[in-house]
Amino acid sequence: MICFRSDYSQGAHPEVWKALAESNFEHTDGYGLDAHCETAAGLIKDLIGKPDCAVHFMVGGTACNLCVIAAALKPYEAVIAAETGHAYVHETGGVEATGHRVIPVKAPDGKLTPESIAQAQSTGEDEHTPLPKLVYLSQPTELGTLYRASELRAISEYCRANGLYLYLDGARLACALTAKENDLSLSDLARLCDAFYLGGTKNGALFGEALVIINEEINDHFRWIVKRSGTLLAKGRLIGVQFEALLSGGKDCLWLRIAKKENAVAQILREGLGSLGVSFYANSPTNQVFPVLPEKLVERMKEDFFFYEWAKPQNGRVALRLVTGWGSTEAEADAFVSTVQTGLEP
Amino acid sequence: MICFRSDYSQGAHPEVWKALAESNFEHTDGYGLDAHCETAAGLIKDLIGKPDCAVHFMVGGTACNLCVIAAALKPYEAVIAAETGHAYVHETGGVEATGHRVIPVKAPDGKLTPESIAQAQSTGEDEHTPLPKLVYLSQPTELGTLYRASELRAISEYCRANGLYLYLDGARLACALTAKENDLSLSDLARLCDAFYLGGTKNGALFGEALVIINEEINDHFRWIVKRSGTLLAKGRLIGVQFEALLSGGKDCLWLRIAKKENAVAQILREGLGSLGVSFYANSPTNQVFPVLPEKLVERMKEDFFFYEWAKPQNGRVALRLVTGWGSTEAEADAFVSTVQTGLEP
Amino acid sequence: MICFRSDYSQGAHPEVWKALAESNFEHTDGYGLDAHCETAAGLIKDLIGKPDCAVHFMVGGTACNLCVIAAALKPYEAVIAAETGHAYVHETGGVEATGHRVIPVKAPDGKLTPESIAQAQSTGEDEHTPLPKLVYLSQPTELGTLYRASELRAISEYCRANGLYLYLDGARLACALTAKENDLSLSDLARLCDAFYLGGTKNGALFGEALVIINEEINDHFRWIVKRSGTLLAKGRLIGVQFEALLSGGKDCLWLRIAKKENAVAQILREGLGSLGVSFYANSPTNQVFPVLPEKLVERMKEDFFFYEWAKPQNGRVALRLVTGWGSTEAEADAFVSTVQTGLEP
Amino acid sequence: MICFRSDYSQGAHPEVWKALAESNFEHTDGYGLDAHCETAAGLIKDLIGKPDCAVHFMVGGTACNLCVIAAALKPYEAVIAAETGHAYVHETGGVEATGHRVIPVKAPDGKLTPESIAQAQSTGEDEHTPLPKLVYLSQPTELGTLYRASELRAISEYCRANGLYLYLDGARLACALTAKENDLSLSDLARLCDAFYLGGTKNGALFGEALVIINEEINDHFRWIVKRSGTLLAKGRLIGVQFEALLSGGKDCLWLRIAKKENAVAQILREGLGSLGVSFYANSPTNQVFPVLPEKLVERMKEDFFFYEWAKPQNGRVALRLVTGWGSTEAEADAFVSTVQTGLEP
Repeated sequence: MICFRSDYSQGAHPEVWKALAESNFEHTDGYGLDAHCETAAGLIKDLIGKPDCAVHFMVGGTACNLCVIAAALKPYEAVIAAETGHAYVHETGGVEATGHRVIPVKAPDGKLTPESIAQAQSTGEDEHTPLPKLVYLSQPTELGTLYRASELRAISEYCRANGLYLYLDGARLACALTAKENDLSLSDLARLCDAFYLGGTKNGALFGEALVIINEEINDHFRWIVKRSGTLLAKGRLIGVQFEALLSGGKDCLWLRIAKKENAVAQILREGLGSLGVSFYANSPTNQVFPVLPEKLVERMKEDFFFYEWAKPQNGRVALRLVTGWGSTEAEADAFVSTVQTGLEP
Repeated sequence: MICFRSDYSQGAHPEVWKALAESNFEHTDGYGLDAHCETAAGLIKDLIGKPDCAVHFMVGGTACNLCVIAAALKPYEAVIAAETGHAYVHETGGVEATGHRVIPVKAPDGKLTPESIAQAQSTGEDEHTPLPKLVYLSQPTELGTLYRASELRAISEYCRANGLYLYLDGARLACALTAKENDLSLSDLARLCDAFYLGGTKNGALFGEALVIINEEINDHFRWIVKRSGTLLAKGRLIGVQFEALLSGGKDCLWLRIAKKENAVAQILREGLGSLGVSFYANSPTNQVFPVLPEKLVERMKEDFFFYEWAKPQNGRVALRLVTGWGSTEAEADAFVSTVQTGLEP
Repeated sequence: MICFRSDYSQGAHPEVWKALAESNFEHTDGYGLDAHCETAAGLIKDLIGKPDCAVHFMVGGTACNLCVIAAALKPYEAVIAAETGHAYVHETGGVEATGHRVIPVKAPDGKLTPESIAQAQSTGEDEHTPLPKLVYLSQPTELGTLYRASELRAISEYCRANGLYLYLDGARLACALTAKENDLSLSDLARLCDAFYLGGTKNGALFGEALVIINEEINDHFRWIVKRSGTLLAKGRLIGVQFEALLSGGKDCLWLRIAKKENAVAQILREGLGSLGVSFYANSPTNQVFPVLPEKLVERMKEDFFFYEWAKPQNGRVALRLVTGWGSTEAEADAFVSTVQTGLEP
Repeated sequence: MICFRSDYSQGAHPEVWKALAESNFEHTDGYGLDAHCETAAGLIKDLIGKPDCAVHFMVGGTACNLCVIAAALKPYEAVIAAETGHAYVHETGGVEATGHRVIPVKAPDGKLTPESIAQAQSTGEDEHTPLPKLVYLSQPTELGTLYRASELRAISEYCRANGLYLYLDGARLACALTAKENDLSLSDLARLCDAFYLGGTKNGALFGEALVIINEEINDHFRWIVKRSGTLLAKGRLIGVQFEALLSGGKDCLWLRIAKKENAVAQILREGLGSLGVSFYANSPTNQVFPVLPEKLVERMKEDFFFYEWAKPQNGRVALRLVTGWGSTEAEADAFVSTVQTGLEP
C-alpha cells in the first residue's frame, strides 16, 4: 500500500528522531521554559531577522490559530477568512468557541485579496455588527495555491491601512517557501504579518509548530492564553528539540530540505499525470496534487494506494487529493502515475 | 544536578521510546483513527472490565479536564472541585473559558467528601444560581493523598443519588494504584466514575493521556468537542502506540511498573527524611514528598538538587515538593537524604 | 417631522399604556413569576392551541434569539440562517458569543428553502466541522417578505427529517399574520416550529417579546439560561401586563389590530409610490416599504421625513426603508407620497 | 397583604410614570441615541463632576455587571468579589459565561478589604493561574451594609497600586448615599472607581440603570459589548426619560428622595423591632432589615405580610429579609412591628 493520504501519516523524520533520542534522558523545566526551546527560538529569530519577536512552541496548528485569535481580538471583533480556509472549514467552530465570528469570503483559488477583505469589512458599520479585526490566510492555501509576494504585500498594506491584523497559517509553509513559483522569504513574512507559524507536524516533526508573534499587542500574556486553552504541553521541550533539528543550518536546514523533496515528488505526480492528459481540480505548485480521475479507475486504485477523495464525484469523475510527506519517494510517485496510465489505456 | 522537580522533566521511558521508534515509519490515518489506538483502547477496556466504554487518547491532562467538562455540562451547570484541585488552581481558568464555574470547596488534605459536596450543592437553589453537575477530583490529589475505596464509594453514591457526574483526574493514577495504602482497582474506578483518565505524561510517556468515558451522555459527539478545543492531535496514533507499550501485560504492565518504582524511590525519601525528624507538609503515600526544611539548608541544597518550593517560608522553614519520575533512582534519593542529614547536624 | 424610521420610535400604544398604569401599584413577585405573566401565557396557549408549551416573557428580540440558541445547541452545533437574517447581521456576533457559528446562506429575497438549508448542512461531514442543528428564520424576513404556508411547511418537514430545530424570529410577526398574502396562523407556527416569539417591541408594546417554546428539549432549565445572559427582567410582570393587553380578545386582539393598521398605512405608501412609477428594493407586503428614489429628492425629503437609507446609492438612486408603527397615520403616508409626487414632477 | 418582599415589587414611582407618559408619543431614534438619554447623561455628569465620563443606560443590574466585566477583562483575567456578592451568588454564572472566573473572597459583613483582595491576588502567580484584574463590590452590600469613605478609599488605593480595576454595583446606591452613616458622595465614587452604576430598578424606576464608566479603557466600543449581550434596549430612550425624572433637581432629586423615604421606613422597622429585643442577622443601615424571629411567629405572619426568609431556620428561629420600596409607608412598618409585638407577648 502506497500512501499519499497526508503529510502527517508517518512519525518523525529520522534526523528529528535522532535529536529527540539524544535529549531523551535530560531533565528540564516544563512548559517550554527550557534551553532547547530557547535555542530553537533563537534560530527562528535569526532566520526571519526579527530578534525582538516572540516564539511559542505549540502542539498543533488549530491550537496556534485559536490562541492567536483569542489573544488578538476583543469580544466583539471578528476574523476574515477564505471560505475554504482551515480555520473556517476544518476546526469545528473552534474560533466561535472563543466567542468570535469567522466571516467567510469567496476565494475561488483559496486566496484572499484586498478587495475581498474590503468587501467583508464593509458590513461592519456600527454597534449592531461584529468588527472585523484579523485577516486569517494560509500559505500555501488549503488548495495548495500560493500567494505571490506582490499579492501578500498588497494584503498587508491594506490591513495596516485599515486597522486589521494579518495572521498567516503556515501548516505547510516550508513547501511554499521551497516551491519554484515562490518569491517570498521568511523575513518577508515577518515584515508583512503580525503573526505566523512554521509548521512542523506536516513537515517532518513528530508533532508541533513554531508560532512567531511579531506584533507585541498579540503577545501580551500569550502563555496565559495557551495554558487556558488546554494546549500548553507539559514536556514543552520536545517541540524545541525538534525545531532545533529542523532549523539548524540556515538555508540548507532540514525543514527546507524535507519540503524540497516533498515538492519534487509531488512534481513527478503532477507532470506525470499531466502528460497523460489528466486535469486538476486546483493548480497547486506545492506538495498537494488534485488530479481528476474516472471514478471506476479510482475505485480500483484504492487497492494499492491510500489517498483522499476531495470532492463528490461528478459525471463519473472524481477529484483526489494526493499529498507527499517526508517519507514519500520518487518510486512511489512513478508507481502511481504508471497505474493511472495503465488504467486510462483504452 | 539531581532532579526531583517533576515527573515530566525527562522524555519517554526507554520501552515507550522503543515502541515509538518501531512504528515510526508506518503510514496510518490521522486523529486517532488507527490500529494502534484501537489496540490500546482494547487493552484499557480489558483492564477496567468495561467493553462498552469509550477511550480517547488526549494530548494532555488539562485537555482531558476541559473537554470532559465542556461535553458533560449544559451552559448553566457548574463543577465542584477541591479548592486545591488542578482544574481550579492550575488551569488558568480554562473551565471558565468553556463558560462554567468551578465551585471551590474547602478540602484540608485535598480530598472532597459527600458532606463538602453537599454543602457546595446547597447554594444552587433556583435560576439565580449555577447548578452544580459534575464533581471533579484527582487520585492521587494535588497533595499526593489518596481516596480510600470507602471514601470514593461514598462520593460516588452521593453523586448518583443527587444527579451529579463524577469525574476523576488521573494524571498520576498509576502511582495511586500501586501505593501501599491503595485499595482501589481500575475496575472500581470504572464502576464508580462517569469518566476518568490514565495519565501518561507523568508516568513514562513522552506525552499523552488515555481518557475513559463510561457514561454515554458525556461521550456524545466527544470528538467534535476535542477538535473544537484545538487539542486533537493530527498524528494521534503516537499516543495509541505509547499506551500499547505502557499497558500490555496486564497487572505487570510497564505503566504500573514505572509507578511502583516511582513510589519506591519516594518512599526512600519519605522514610529517610522522617527518620531524621523532618516533618511533612502533606501526608502523601505516592510519588510526591513534601518535607519541611530550614530555609538556609534549602538554599544550599539548590546547588545540587532541582525541586519546587511548595509554599512560602514560615518561621525560617519552607515546604518543598519532591517528585520522583520514571528515571529517578534510589541512589538519587539516598543522596538527597544524606545531604539533609549533613545539613541538619548541629 | 414625520417619522417612518422604525416601528419602535414611539412608546407604548395607549391601550398597553393603560394596562401598565392600572397595575402600577400592585405588589408582585419578580422575574416573571406573577399572575399577569401567567394570564398572558394562558392567552398565548389558547391562541396557538398548545396548552403544554412554555411561554417566557423576554426583554427583547436579540435576547430571545441568543437564549433559544444557547439552550438548544450543544457546544459543537451551529445555526443556519439567511445571510440577511437579523441573528447574522444585526446582533454583533451575539450567537458567536454563546460559542456557536451562524452559517450564512444565500437568500435573494431573505428566505431560506429546504434546498439552501440542505446545502448548508452538506458541509457538516465529520468531527472537523460544526454540526448544523438549528434553522433560524424570521417571519416576515428582514426584507419584509413572507414565507407562504407551503414554504414553511416544506422547511419544517425538512428540518424534522434531518434532525434540525426550527426557530422563528417573530419581531414583526403580527404584521405577517395580518398581511393580505398571509396563509399561516399562529397554530400553524406552533405545529411547524420548535420555538418562536410574538414580537411586542415593534408592535405596540413599550418593550418585550413573548417567547413560545414548543419543544421541551429547548425548554429544559430555560430560566437559568435567561438569568445567566443578563436579560431576566426584575419586574418581569411588566411584560406580562402588556401581553395581557395585547392578546386579550382572540382574533380581534389589540396585537393584531395594531398590525393591521400598520400594514394599511404601509399599503398607502406602497400603492401611492407604485402609482408614481417608483420601483422597490424588496417586495414586502408588510409594514416595511423599500422605495428606490433619486438621491437628490431623498436629500430634500430629509427636512420633513425621518427614515433609513437602506443601501448605498447606485446610479444616483437610493433605496429607503419606510416602516410604519402603531402611531403612524394615513395622513402621514399621504404626505410622503405627495411629496415624492411633487419631487418627481419634471 | 403588606409587602416587604423587595424594592422591585411595584411599578414606577408616579413622578417617573408621569415623565414616561408625557414622552410616550414622541418619535426618537432607538438604542439610547436620543435627546432624553443625552440630557439624563448630562445630569449624571454634573452630579458626579466628571464631564468626560461615559454614561450608558442599561436594562438591568446583571446586564451592567456582565457588560463591564466583558469589556474590561482580557480572556485570562478574573474578578475578585465577596463570596456574598451579587455577581457571584445571584447571576447564575453569568460572569463565567463571559469566560471569566469570579474569585470568591470571605467577607463576614459582605465587605471586601485591601487585605482580602491582596489574599485573592496572591494566588495569581504565573501562566497557570487566572490573573485577577477587576474588583467587584456593591454599595450597599447584599447584606445592606455600607463601605465607609475610609474603607472605599483604601480599597481604591490598593487597586490602583496593584493594577486592578474597581467596579461598584449600585443597585441600591441611592439608599447608601442617603443613609445616616454614609460619608461618601457620588463624586467620591467617581474619583475612586473605574465604573459604577446608579440603580433605577430598585429605586423608583419602572426598570433600568445608569452605568457610569470613568476609565476610558473599559469604555472602548462598549456599545458593541452591550448589543452582543442581547441587552441593548430598542426603545432605549425609556431609560433616559426615567433618569431625567429621577435625577433632575440636584441634591433634592427624586432618586434621593425616594431613597430617603425607603431608609426612613426601614428605620421604623429596625428601631421598632430592636426595642422589642429582636436581634438582627446583619447590621444594615439602609432599606433592608434582617430580623431574626421565632419560626412559629413567622409562619403566622405570612398571612398578612409578604417577605423573604433569608436563611434556613436554626434553633426555632429564622432570619427574614424585609425590604422597603418607593411605595412603602410608615403605617405598613408600624403594622409589622405591632404584629411582632403581639406575637412575642408571653
